Amino acid sequence: MQRALELAHLGQGFVEPNPAVGSVIVDDRLQLLGEGYHQKCGGPHAEIHAIRMAEDKARGATVYVTLEPCCHQGKTGPCSQALIQAGVKKVVIAMRDPAPHVDGGGITDLKAAGIEVEVGLLEEEAQRLVRPFVKRVTQGLPWVHAKWAMTLDGKIASRTGHSQWISNSRSRAIVHELRGRMDAIMVGHQTALSDDPLLTARPAGKRTLTRIVVDSQATLSCESRLVRTISEAPVLVVAHPSAPAENIQRLEQAGVEVCLIAGDADSTRPDLTSFMRELGRREMTNVLIEGGGGVLGSGFDAGMIDEVHVFLAPKLVGGAAAITPMAGIGLDQIPSFENITELEVQQLESDLYLHGRVVYQASECDGSVEPKSV
Amino acid sequence: MQRALELAHLGQGFVEPNPAVGSVIVDDRLQLLGEGYHQKCGGPHAEIHAIRMAEDKARGATVYVTLEPCCHQGKTGPCSQALIQAGVKKVVIAMRDPAPHVDGGGITDLKAAGIEVEVGLLEEEAQRLVRPFVKRVTQGLPWVHAKWAMTLDGKIASRTGHSQWISNSRSRAIVHELRGRMDAIMVGHQTALSDDPLLTARPAGKRTLTRIVVDSQATLSCESRLVRTISEAPVLVVAHPSAPAENIQRLEQAGVEVCLIAGDADSTRPDLTSFMRELGRREMTNVLIEGGGGVLGSGFDAGMIDEVHVFLAPKLVGGAAAITPMAGIGLDQIPSFENITELEVQQLESDLYLHGRVVYQASECDGSVEPKSV
Repeated sequence: MQRALELAHLGQGFVEPNPAVGSVIVDDRLQLLGEGYHQKCGGPHAEIHAIRMAEDKARGATVYVTLEPCCHQGKTGPCSQALIQAGVKKVVIAMRDPAPHVDGGGITDLKAAGIEVEVGLLEEEAQRLVRPFVKRVTQGLPWVHAKWAMTLDGKIASRTGHSQWISNSRSRAIVHELRGRMDAIMVGHQTALSDDPLLTARPAGKRTLTRIVVDSQATLSCESRLVRTISEAPVLVVAHPSAPAENIQRLEQAGVEVCLIAGDADSTRPDLTSFMRELGRREMTNVLIEGGGGVLGSGFDAGMIDEVHVFLAPKLVGGAAAITPMAGIGLDQIPSFENITELEVQQLESDLYLHGRVVYQASECDGSVEPKSV
Repeated sequence: MQRALELAHLGQGFVEPNPAVGSVIVDDRLQLLGEGYHQKCGGPHAEIHAIRMAEDKARGATVYVTLEPCCHQGKTGPCSQALIQAGVKKVVIAMRDPAPHVDGGGITDLKAAGIEVEVGLLEEEAQRLVRPFVKRVTQGLPWVHAKWAMTLDGKIASRTGHSQWISNSRSRAIVHELRGRMDAIMVGHQTALSDDPLLTARPAGKRTLTRIVVDSQATLSCESRLVRTISEAPVLVVAHPSAPAENIQRLEQAGVEVCLIAGDADSTRPDLTSFMRELGRREMTNVLIEGGGGVLGSGFDAGMIDEVHVFLAPKLVGGAAAITPMAGIGLDQIPSFENITELEVQQLESDLYLHGRVVYQASECDGSVEPKSV
């Protein structure tokens, strides 16, 4: 199953909105007969690759697969039937597929055909691998990553808004890798204005990402680098219904999609949760918020940020008016539990890359308090 | 010399305002004859301990010492004379003592007596060890440490001022160790008011520290835990000359020393640099600023912070109104060089302890960009 998980990882970034899945087929003496992983959305599933490699030897063999085999006719045929036809003896599944169109149906099919089924081997690792997929299919929301580069005194820009560069080139390379497996990157209009960013992955990543600007009044300039590079990757402006029609028209004529999202009764800011639901409907699995503090703060206040990627540079900038990573309302009190869990720390020359999952309830914390150092 | 440096470290926290010094005496075959370190201010210097241990065998031997031997009659006799009388053949010195009353005089004495002298072995390590001493004797200023505990989103307190606890108990134990070797701990009056801290080292450290509150109008309450524990450690309030006389009198009657320091013409805040000069005059070598953001920001703006100790906790708190580690004016731009150098990173369970030296000019940076992980 460990090997199946390793294989599954190879599909990440290519397979979404599908889950990344890996599969291994062995005989009674644990000799490898076949293996495979889901390589891209629309292509064969992991089990099919493994069965094809094993050929006739799959008969009577044991299949390890990181996610319950599907039981429905999608872009490809149901894997449960393929396993039955291959005549396998046993299927070991790391985790059940919570997607409504599977949800135990694959396991039922296999058992009905007299195949022995075991569920739960290395389940935690398997769950971790497909968390973004599970969030989308169960909650209708993308998995939201947040990224910022920060000085040792907790600033993401100086008092004049200067921010290039806080982190070093190795950190920035990691950011581009991260961007490369996202469905969308989101920034606030202030960041779009002051940094005039491209928000593309360089070098190009595994999928084409949508560049999103949260911009209530649809003020994004058509001269911005985002709009000027619209042929490279789509740009979506999230505006409030109160945005001037001429702004919307101007952007739409430049090829920008403008998505109007209402806010609270007393706000002209689009509601972030409603917008995330819209991204979920579009089958976006991974979305990265890159700042500024306003959008990151709103994401945290809405309980919407699932994972953080923080690049900490050995610099001080000072200043009461300097910009910090999270604005918004924030918590009244410092949480009594560690609301960043699964913390991993990596040294990138003199920068530190801190990566962890955000939990909003103490009960979600895992038992481990030891960070993993890579 | 490595051994001499190790020995010297043992004296840190006990010897100030003297420098920590270690010494080793060996014979021609590098057999150890004697060793020692300066153990406490007023006690024998390192060389004297080593000579006493070596006894007659010091004659014709080689002495390694981390700092140039003194040549003046202080609380103890001059070490240069003691070495000459012991009849040593050679003295290897890591670094020249820049204190005005030595400054090469010890080396001159030894050479005049026909002793071979070598200077510069492991000089960098030796310099690092006595940097606070060197700053005090050459600039008349203490070495200023700054400490803060911060969430992963760069906050030292929530929007309501709540801050207990951001860091975990292991981090807090390190803070108490750090306090234990300081001459003074300094906080702003807002921190004194909202946290009502004791600012003592618990367990008690190597020396008695003075607890300092920067408090322009001398408003510190006589009911504060600081004032109520004045018999345990002195409390000093730094106020502006515009502070009401009744406030000053009230504090002085409670045993608090009130030090009046003028500010800029258009400010009622005491000038931090002037106050640091006062601490230098009092022979304070190590001073720790523990916050809040106002005092830390003033310290950074004044180019006064030499070393930072940052405890980073895997927590998010959010909030535009939450408190960040450094207020003040700050830099216009993110520095193009890493103005924290000699960065060391230590994991304390899930907290990170980041420790480094602050440099204000790119030329002060050392070449190394690799942080040391402990």
